[in-house]
Amino acid sequence: MPGAYNPADFPPLAVTVDLVLMTVADGRLAVLLQRRSAPPHKDDWALPGGFVGVAESLDAAAERILTEKAGLLYAWLEQLYSFGDPGRDPRMRIVTIAYFALLPHEALAGTLDGRHDLALAPLDIPWPGEQGGPVAALGPDRRPLPLAFDHDDILDHAVKRLRGKLDYSPIAFALLPPRFTLRALQDVHEAILGIGLNKPAFRRRMLDRAWIEGTGEREEGGAFRPAELYRVKPEAP
Amino acid sequence: MPGAYNPADFPPLAVTVDLVLMTVADGRLAVLLQRRSAPPHKDDWALPGGFVGVAESLDAAAERILTEKAGLLYAWLEQLYSFGDPGRDPRMRIVTIAYFALLPHEALAGTLDGRHDLALAPLDIPWPGEQGGPVAALGPDRRPLPLAFDHDDILDHAVKRLRGKLDYSPIAFALLPPRFTLRALQDVHEAILGIGLNKPAFRRRMLDRAWIEGTGEREEGGAFRPAELYRVKPEAP
Repeated sequence: MPGAYNPADFPPLAVTVDLVLMTVADGRLAVLLQRRSAPPHKDDWALPGGFVGVAESLDAAAERILTEKAGLLYAWLEQLYSFGDPGRDPRMRIVTIAYFALLPHEALAGTLDGRHDLALAPLDIPWPGEQGGPVAALGPDRRPLPLAFDHDDILDHAVKRLRGKLDYSPIAFALLPPRFTLRALQDVHEAILGIGLNKPAFRRRMLDRAWIEGTGEREEGGAFRPAELYRVKPEAP
Repeated sequence: MPGAYNPADFPPLAVTVDLVLMTVADGRLAVLLQRRSAPPHKDDWALPGGFVGVAESLDAAAERILTEKAGLLYAWLEQLYSFGDPGRDPRMRIVTIAYFALLPHEALAGTLDGRHDLALAPLDIPWPGEQGGPVAALGPDRRPLPLAFDHDDILDHAVKRLRGKLDYSPIAFALLPPRFTLRALQDVHEAILGIGLNKPAFRRRMLDRAWIEGTGEREEGGAFRPAELYRVKPEAP
């Protein structure tokens, strides 16, 4: 319950939304980065983000930034966490509301063409339970690419939350097209967890959980034994 | 990634932290409310909250507000969600970061004495899966007490998140003292879920999950068969 507002004690702060836009590409979890064109951290890579307009909800800001910065009309947007350490931006006090923006790799097709300011960076994911270090975005040389501001912390938080939500929410399906094979679903789980999974056990668990159902259709292309396509049931949580 | 900052496009916003301070009292989940002493919503009840200082982290603001507004030195603080609809406060654009502040009822002892501006309101919790309506704080007449601003929404969000976290996180233990009986643990679960649970099945599930261990001690007082006291294992998630 905010009390009487004394602007001298509590000057207004800037509020931004940053997107942790992730997909699974080539079997790895990957994040969309934007190269900064202006100080601070000029030329460094960062999560795409922007200031929240004065008459704009947080969700609306996330949608606008998705379109303006990443050129995308749709992703699974979900608020992740707010970061507000006083020193996180050298310009001024900025509180940022981080959002997941998840989408299947197919949905990114073409959006990165000719956009030299954007890059889809694969992630180095430590093994679950490993104390070895945080999640890191990898540069073209496959070495960790330090991100601007506290964006490495935000990225680390996002991957851990995604991993935590795998078992009790259908969030993984946001990384898949509407119809997918069980192999593709396993790829997504393995990419998020950073480990290989036993195929029969994984399939049994997914079918037991009853969030998905077979479509009766099979994948197209030249597969010798084309796999069945599944979809999320409408009543999944 | 915030771009060049144009104050005309994006005037700074006010940022507050609001606490959803909850405990279990008399077998019911209850929330701490504060009566507003100034407009807007003067004399209405609201979640305790305050503006974030310019050099203060969000977590530090939550701790300060816990002490200043509720007179408490400690609670389980955990960021819940950020609420930022443009019309949520009639004074100005305010984005609020809501925090859980959870504590055992014993820890509130004495803090409400003589504080006519504070009240611990029991919650009316709809049955899980019931479409019947949101969570509501109850007034002294046991009827729903509409809260100021969007605080009913924040409260509803908090209870649903708490319910969702029961099964995969040890958050329920924040509502219990360090040593507790299995009956008290069941009371907390029943209060959050809004349903009665089968005692043998509940105990088996709690002991199978292996987050708690017996202390070998028994509760004090006049019980004919004093129950064993349990504690959370150090390695619980």
